[in-house]
Amino acid sequence: MGNGDEVQNKQVIFRDYYVSGLPKESDLILNAATIELKVPEGSKAVLLKNLYLSCDPSMRVRMKKLPDSASYLPSFRPGSPLYGFGVAKVLDSGHPDFKEGDLVCGLIGWEEYTIIQDSKRVGMLTKIQFTDVPLSYYIGILGIPGLTAYVGFYEICAPKKGEYVFVSAASGAIGQLVGQFAKLMGCYVVGSAGSNEKVDLLKNKLGFDEAFNYKEEKNLAAALKRYFLEGIDIYFDNVGGKMLDAVLTNMRLHGRIAVCGMISQYHNLDEPEGVHNLMSLIVKRFRMEGFVVSDYFHLFPKFLELMRQHIKEGKMVYVEDISKGLENAPAALVGLFHGRNIGKQVVLVSEE
Amino acid sequence: MGNGDEVQNKQVIFRDYYVSGLPKESDLILNAATIELKVPEGSKAVLLKNLYLSCDPSMRVRMKKLPDSASYLPSFRPGSPLYGFGVAKVLDSGHPDFKEGDLVCGLIGWEEYTIIQDSKRVGMLTKIQFTDVPLSYYIGILGIPGLTAYVGFYEICAPKKGEYVFVSAASGAIGQLVGQFAKLMGCYVVGSAGSNEKVDLLKNKLGFDEAFNYKEEKNLAAALKRYFLEGIDIYFDNVGGKMLDAVLTNMRLHGRIAVCGMISQYHNLDEPEGVHNLMSLIVKRFRMEGFVVSDYFHLFPKFLELMRQHIKEGKMVYVEDISKGLENAPAALVGLFHGRNIGKQVVLVSEE
Ligand SMILES: NC(=O)c1ccc[n+]([C@@H]2O[C@H](COP(=O)([O-])OP(=O)(O)OC[C@H]3O[C@@H](n4cnc5c(N)ncnc54)[C@H](OP(=O)(O)O)[C@@H]3O)[C@@H](O)[C@H]2O)c1
Ligand SMILES: NC(=O)c1ccc[n+]([C@@H]2O[C@H](COP(=O)([O-])OP(=O)(O)OC[C@H]3O[C@@H](n4cnc5c(N)ncnc54)[C@H](OP(=O)(O)O)[C@@H]3O)[C@@H](O)[C@H]2O)c1
Repeated sequence: MGNGDEVQNKQVIFRDYYVSGLPKESDLILNAATIELKVPEGSKAVLLKNLYLSCDPSMRVRMKKLPDSASYLPSFRPGSPLYGFGVAKVLDSGHPDFKEGDLVCGLIGWEEYTIIQDSKRVGMLTKIQFTDVPLSYYIGILGIPGLTAYVGFYEICAPKKGEYVFVSAASGAIGQLVGQFAKLMGCYVVGSAGSNEKVDLLKNKLGFDEAFNYKEEKNLAAALKRYFLEGIDIYFDNVGGKMLDAVLTNMRLHGRIAVCGMISQYHNLDEPEGVHNLMSLIVKRFRMEGFVVSDYFHLFPKFLELMRQHIKEGKMVYVEDISKGLENAPAALVGLFHGRNIGKQVVLVSEE
Repeated sequence: MGNGDEVQNKQVIFRDYYVSGLPKESDLILNAATIELKVPEGSKAVLLKNLYLSCDPSMRVRMKKLPDSASYLPSFRPGSPLYGFGVAKVLDSGHPDFKEGDLVCGLIGWEEYTIIQDSKRVGMLTKIQFTDVPLSYYIGILGIPGLTAYVGFYEICAPKKGEYVFVSAASGAIGQLVGQFAKLMGCYVVGSAGSNEKVDLLKNKLGFDEAFNYKEEKNLAAALKRYFLEGIDIYFDNVGGKMLDAVLTNMRLHGRIAVCGMISQYHNLDEPEGVHNLMSLIVKRFRMEGFVVSDYFHLFPKFLELMRQHIKEGKMVYVEDISKGLENAPAALVGLFHGRNIGKQVVLVSEE
């Protein structure tokens, strides 16, 4: 490898900005480029063979042209490959920190091979040290979704033993971990998800005390009331919109809402749905707090150690939904917005 | 006094529950009852001559029949006098803690004389110790509005020197104090109010850095942008609704919103306006927190000492709007919802 051969490099190209609506497969183009498997002579670039890609709801937000201040993530560039978190293997490197054969995770392109020239971006790659877990875990339970669940639950929700916890998109990449953290903490935890199969998973594999299919509920507030007779102490919000509104009227005195994501609104950021029940904030004196995982990267080492321990001891499990082949990546991404993924949505680009 | 004479006792009676709409004078009835100026033999009751009544926006909320859990304040009883905070003088007392001539503040009826029999309610009266300030201050700067501003600003907003602060209903009972606290803290503070006269007051008497008349602004978000080029660190929310929505898009990284009140919604609690821009909570990672002053009554002694000091040193001023005569109380209360009050709305029932 790193032998300078010119090979085909399949890519998933972002077509163009658009404003409203759910992402469609046709917003993405499969392209067959070529690439020379060698970093430029004398450069500090790194050439990667991509193994796993992460499908993230926030990628929808980045398909819209946004002023920099409007989001915490930059917009994609039309005509260029999508990019996001992934796991890759170093094929060639001019950078002193990386050598051929290293496994890394970090921001990579939606393509078979990525060459990273910008030294700042090379610096953002992390070397994978432990290979006693599936490599895909580094974009799931041991990656951004894991750290997001960890920070949102422990830092933002400040949970106490015995509290009543609700999680939306509960079987997803982040939600399934929040539920498990809540159980480890001695909380009562209920999750919502969009199919009966997911509800089963939550109750029978992921240890949630209860779960319900929100698509089968006419009245979300009444559904929540059924599971939380005394109200909700902690809501971990992945979806926003109507579910958030229903939660607001079911909050308990001095509760906390960690505002992690609002996937129900990403397709219509210019005219998001109205949330009506904010008066509850006063009546029940609770707190809503938004957070972004990148503010907490300093906690990563501590987080990684804890999670590896939990996995080793069988205290936590992780459900992944692995889509095979880069050509299936557009469908995998689009599927998030229809709840097609069961667990963390990953694209396998290549076996190691 | 306390001589057992039967005298006339004018009252403001609450007519009946209603669901939507602004309160009207016709929702209240002036009634001429009579009362014997003596507590029942052997009872622990207290007989009060009422001096000042406080007009509070939350009284609108209490004109609706609400389940106990839906508000932190009980609903009024149709056919009975309104009640709320006030200042009164003890005419007769069977209770060991109070004697004729004592000045008290606490929950009293909207009437000339109130007899309090329930020992729990007698226990909630506070004896006024210092009379070197106007007595009406005990339902304003030294009472609930004062403590609410103090708690909301210092405890919930956790302000730091140099931060950018915005206050709505800024010339009102609470808002004018929040602005002054912000200046004492070394913050930049802007207030919104509903008339140019109030804007003048804010800038020229109350020390706000800037102020604007929100009724003259077509686009509230753009107005805020004008005064907060770098965004808002702290929003003290007295009004909710559209102003809150405009603030959300103008918040600064890691800001805080103290949710004190939502007067723009009190007339329509069954169908409150939607708030659309909650995604900002994530993008700007800020916090919204509701609070109720009664959770902080333990801070009252510390608060009172600080405020008396500030008043004595001329560091804080207080603007009151005093309506004379119980017969004018309904108009005074209704006026809050049209912004007729300039400063804290008080009803003078009787000079001492
Ligand atoms: N704050 C941060 O730093 C941060 C970091 C990463 C991710 N996030 C956010 O966290 C949330 C969860 O992300 P994830 O990676 O764990 O995704 P995920 O839950 O694995 O996948 C998305 C899930 O959302 C649900 N969904 C889709 N459309 C919906 C709608 N209109 N209403 C309700 N639910 C809908 C679907 O499940 P159902 O079958 O249950 O509908 C879908 O499976 C997202 O909002 C994401 O943007 C935040
Ligand atoms: N959380 C607590 O413990 C607590 C305790 C006490 C009071 N509060 C709340 O604090 C807030 C302020 O109370 P306050 O006693 O200081 O009242 P205030 O500000 O003295 O009087 C109410 C003012 O609200 C403004 N207003 C009326 N209708 C409005 C609308 N539709 N939209 C925008 N503004 C409107 C008017 O001023 P403009 O001319 O500026 O429009 C009016 O003068 C209220 O929401 C109240 O319920 C909360």
